[in-house]
Formats: sequence, C-alpha cells, structure tokens
Amino acid sequence: MDITIAVDAMGCDMGPVAAVEGAVGALSDGRFGGKITKILLVGRQAEINAHLAKTPHDSGRLEVVDADEVIHVDESPTAAIKTKKNSSIVVGLNLVKQGRAAAFVSAGSTGAVLTGATTIIGRIKGIKRPALGVLLPNSNGGHTFLTDAGANVEVKPEFLLQFAQMGSVYMESVLDVKNPRIGLINVGAEREKGTSVAKASHELLEASQLNFLGNVEARDIPYGTVDVAVCDGFVGNIILKYTEGYAKGLFATLKTELISKFLSRFGALLSRGAFKRMRKRYDYTEVGGAPFIGLNGLVVKAHGSSNAKAMKNSIGQCVKFIEGGVVGKIAAMSSEKLDERDEKNGI
Amino acid sequence: MDITIAVDAMGCDMGPVAAVEGAVGALSDGRFGGKITKILLVGRQAEINAHLAKTPHDSGRLEVVDADEVIHVDESPTAAIKTKKNSSIVVGLNLVKQGRAAAFVSAGSTGAVLTGATTIIGRIKGIKRPALGVLLPNSNGGHTFLTDAGANVEVKPEFLLQFAQMGSVYMESVLDVKNPRIGLINVGAEREKGTSVAKASHELLEASQLNFLGNVEARDIPYGTVDVAVCDGFVGNIILKYTEGYAKGLFATLKTELISKFLSRFGALLSRGAFKRMRKRYDYTEVGGAPFIGLNGLVVKAHGSSNAKAMKNSIGQCVKFIEGGVVGKIAAMSSEKLDERDEKNGI
Repeated sequence: MDITIAVDAMGCDMGPVAAVEGAVGALSDGRFGGKITKILLVGRQAEINAHLAKTPHDSGRLEVVDADEVIHVDESPTAAIKTKKNSSIVVGLNLVKQGRAAAFVSAGSTGAVLTGATTIIGRIKGIKRPALGVLLPNSNGGHTFLTDAGANVEVKPEFLLQFAQMGSVYMESVLDVKNPRIGLINVGAEREKGTSVAKASHELLEASQLNFLGNVEARDIPYGTVDVAVCDGFVGNIILKYTEGYAKGLFATLKTELISKFLSRFGALLSRGAFKRMRKRYDYTEVGGAPFIGLNGLVVKAHGSSNAKAMKNSIGQCVKFIEGGVVGKIAAMSSEKLDERDEKNGI
Repeated sequence: MDITIAVDAMGCDMGPVAAVEGAVGALSDGRFGGKITKILLVGRQAEINAHLAKTPHDSGRLEVVDADEVIHVDESPTAAIKTKKNSSIVVGLNLVKQGRAAAFVSAGSTGAVLTGATTIIGRIKGIKRPALGVLLPNSNGGHTFLTDAGANVEVKPEFLLQFAQMGSVYMESVLDVKNPRIGLINVGAEREKGTSVAKASHELLEASQLNFLGNVEARDIPYGTVDVAVCDGFVGNIILKYTEGYAKGLFATLKTELISKFLSRFGALLSRGAFKRMRKRYDYTEVGGAPFIGLNGLVVKAHGSSNAKAMKNSIGQCVKFIEGGVVGKIAAMSSEKLDERDEKNGI
C-alpha cells in the first residue's frame, strides 16, 4: 500500500522546525514509520531545507514541495484560500486532490484548513457536512471520539446523524472498536431533553442502524461510557477547549499545592513517575491531530502549538486511517443511504 | 436584618438527614450562622423530627413546616408543580412568595425547582428569563460565575445580555468583585465567530455598560480570565457536567497511577496534605448550590448528591446574597432599562 503524506511545514506556531523534525521522526518511528512510503513537506523550500540540513534523514522518502505563501491565523479563511494559491495549505490540499498524497496534515489556521479542504478536496457524495473529530482520553484507559469538534457551529439533525455514522466508521476502522457505542451530547438522558435540534437528532439516531445508547451527558466523555460523542461544532469546540484549559488549571493548582510545603514537595518527588504517566495519558501531543472526516481524502488538523512529537503523532495517525480505508467506507455507507433514498423515492 | 431561609428537607438523594444536619450546622457556623434568624425545614414532619431528635440544635431558630408530598426527579416538572401542591418544593417556594422566607434551598429535581420558582415566585419585572449560575473554581484561586448553567436551553441575544447583567450584580454583591469582567463563551475571540445568536449577543454586550471583554473560549473559565462567563443553558449545563466528570476522571486516573508503584504510593502519602487542599478547592460541596437569578426572591439549587456539608454551604451562601441585596439591585437595574426603553419609545 502506497502511503504518501503531505505535511504543512509552515503551520506550527514555533515555525517549520516542528513539522520538519516531526516528519523525519515519523519516517523512522517503529510503530508506523515503515508503512509510510514518502512524506511531502510543503512550504518555503529554503527554510525547510535549512532545517533538513541540520537533521539526519532518509532523503529518498522526504521531498520538499515549494509553496512560498503562508496563510496566517488572523486572515479571513475564504479570502486567503481564494487568493493565496501558492500557500502551503492550498498546495498541500491540492496534492491530496491530485492523488499525489493520501493525507494532508496541517497545524495552520483551522478556518483556512477546513474551508480549503471542503473547497479543494470536496465532500464525499451524500455527506452534507464534513466534521472535525478529536480523541479525548477517558478514565477507562481508552479514548472517546468527539465529533463535531468545531467545523459546523450551526447544524441540522441530519448532519448530526452523519457525524455519528462517520464517527462509528472511524472508531471501528482506526481504533478497532467493535460496534462503537454512540451517545448524543445533551443536558439529560431523557429523550425529551434539550433543544429542538437535539430532540430531532435523538429520533434520527434511534431509527438508525447505529449502536445508539441515547442522550448522554458531557461527563460521559471522561467516563468513557460511549465511544463516539456526537454534538454540534459549537458545543464540541467548547468541550475541546475546556478540556485543554481545565487540565492545565488543575495541574497548575496541584503543582502550587505540592511545592507549598516541604513534605508535599518531597512526596511529589517520589511520585514523579506517576505524574509523568498521568501527564502522558492526558497529553494531546500523544494522540495527534483532529481528522476532518467526510472528505474525499484525509485532512488532519494538528494543534497550532504542536511540537515535533505532536506533528510526528499526527502524521502517524494517518497511517491507520488510510490502512483502515475510512474514506472508502464512508463513501460506501453514504451511497447505500443514497440508494435507499432513491428506492424510497421510486427512482 | 431578618434572614429566614427555607430548606427542602426531602430533596437530597441520601434523604432528609443531609438537609437536617446541614441546617443545624448552618445555624452554628462561625462564618454565617449568627446572621441567620431562622431556618424552616420543609418536608415530612415526622421524618424530619426523627432526625432532629438525634441532632442537638437550637430549637428556637429551627422550625419544621409540614409538606407530605415529594416530587421525584423522573416526574414531569410542570405536572408535578401543578398537582403536588403539598410537596416540599411547592410549599417551600410559597414561603418565599409569602415573604415568610427570603430564600429557598433545594437539592430536588432541577426541572421542578426551576418551573416551580418561575411559576410561584415569579420573575423580576423586565427580566425575560431567570438563569442558573454556578461558581467554578479557577486556577487564580478565585471563582468564575458561569451563567446560564442550565435553565434555558434555547435563548435569544437579549436573554444573554440580561444573564451578563445579573451575573455582574451577583459577583459584585456576593463575591465583592469590583467591576466584574464579562466574557461571552464562544468558539474564538473574534467578533464574527460563532452562531448567529452568539454574534448578535456580542453586539448587545459590547453596546452595554458592562465591563465586557468580548468573546472568550471555554478555557478562560478555569484560567479565571473573566469573572462572569455567559452562555446559553445548553452549553452551560454541558460545561458544568463536564467539569464534574472530568475532575472525577482525572483524579481517578491519578489515584490509579499513584498506587501502582510503591515509591509513588509512599510519595503520595507524604503529599496527602497537598491533595487534600487541592480537592477542597475543586470540591463543589465547599461552594454551595447554584442560585437561580432573576426571580423576586432567592432560590438555590443544590446538587442532588449533596451531603450535610454541601447543604450547610448552600444555606450559608444565601446570607451574602440576601445581605448584598441582589434581588433589589437586579430589579432596580431592570426598571432603569425599562425606563430607558420607555424614553426611547416616547412613553
């Protein structure tokens, strides 16, 4: 299987070094490196080469694709995608469109990546809205796939149904979860809870073939009660950002408390292995980025503050996605639904 | 100042013992006990008296008000409030309506308490929708007031403006925060972010007299960037429930990690003081319940799983609210706005 991955070298807050070192690291990573045919580093050639010169790498499997423009986070996504044809994001997405790469990983402007992906790569036929998904660690030792994590702030019930279907395919194909449990994020378990969109979505999900457990509360994400937690992109983005901030706040408070007294400080020193394992479990750089599902190709949005490890894991994450054939499975599922609808309509 | 507080003795999951012991404890608590004139324990007289008989108390300041019906969490709130006229919730709310109590504290069905409060006590003139508010601990050592925390799942921009105004009064009067900083929970800082309701709310808040910092992200709550975080009740409830679950999940994982190795276990033993202080800071039983603001009286919704300490703190919380004259201040603010509108309309 030819797995070529395009990587945006200009998207990370800390500059090209994170993407370049991440790409080099990915190629030699024991977990997935052997399966990657080639990585295409997209961005300002001279800058990328300067970093590559400092990093020993397999030059036969690493190619630089020049793109001399950069889209900044404060630019209007739509305008930037239209005008900056030679930006790393537009060039990278075109590599996927042209079939030269199976995936594009970017830590750049979320808006530009999403807008560009939808415009350039395009939606799978029958998919109304692509969605972002993120894997959040739960206390069962596993992960819960939260979708939509921020692509669609306003939704219709049919969108949520598709997010659930795509999330189910993702968890089955990428994380090997059999018959993934789906929950609809709501303000209570009862079917009549929530907004009118939530109520209508509950009905659609219940009538579907999915392993739908019903409404769940936000606490079911960290508890790991469900494998896929479905919500609109407004709520999803809030949960995602809150997770980041809350963990940081909690660890900061714990640190302050631990160093405030001698005995605690000494105790913390002895427990540092446990804290390290804990941090690792809750560290987003371990998981990789957020796949944007529902497109005719894979686009992974990595965190803007990604370091080399986060970029490496975001690249690695693509391997299972591609091997699992997620795009093809979603397309098959979607065309089945289209056929069913056509049958109903007597076409 | 006469401060009489009515307490729902039947609302706690663990039965009347939590409310009874909480009330007894509140009357003798050094922080606020001396300011409470009387507590009215509302519920099944015989059951309450049986618990009171076992708990030494100041009988001159503790009165039982009989209410032999109980509203359960699985009942339809509207139907229950209409038919169970002799339930502890309806009787307790009537005590506030009749002016016999300045506040009602209940750990019972959220839906029934909210529906009952709006129907029986009623809204302050000019307030379109009362809202729930909760104090969430932040890493600055303070608290952020999240409102609406679950009363209104669907909102209009004018509701959110009022939530912000009421939250500002609350933080100023109850927590002595000067010129509280207000943030609108959104998916990004830019004014054009979010749903159509979010955009219109941003405009209204910006045009107001409030100390509005603009859109904030959910992580600003644990960071303590704002004093009042405004959102609809759907998002607010999700943040609230997520906070609960996430903290529980995080502590559970940490515990597992800490006891997994001898050295960590020994270290944790030495650091237990720090963990205790940490837990205390993040413990909801320390803060009390969620005030339901915008009514002609104070109603506090305590957590269903409240123990005696949580009930005591929920009762104590009412003292500062009443002393701070929150209801009067919201009414004054609201009538000012009404006057302004009348002026505009040339009335």
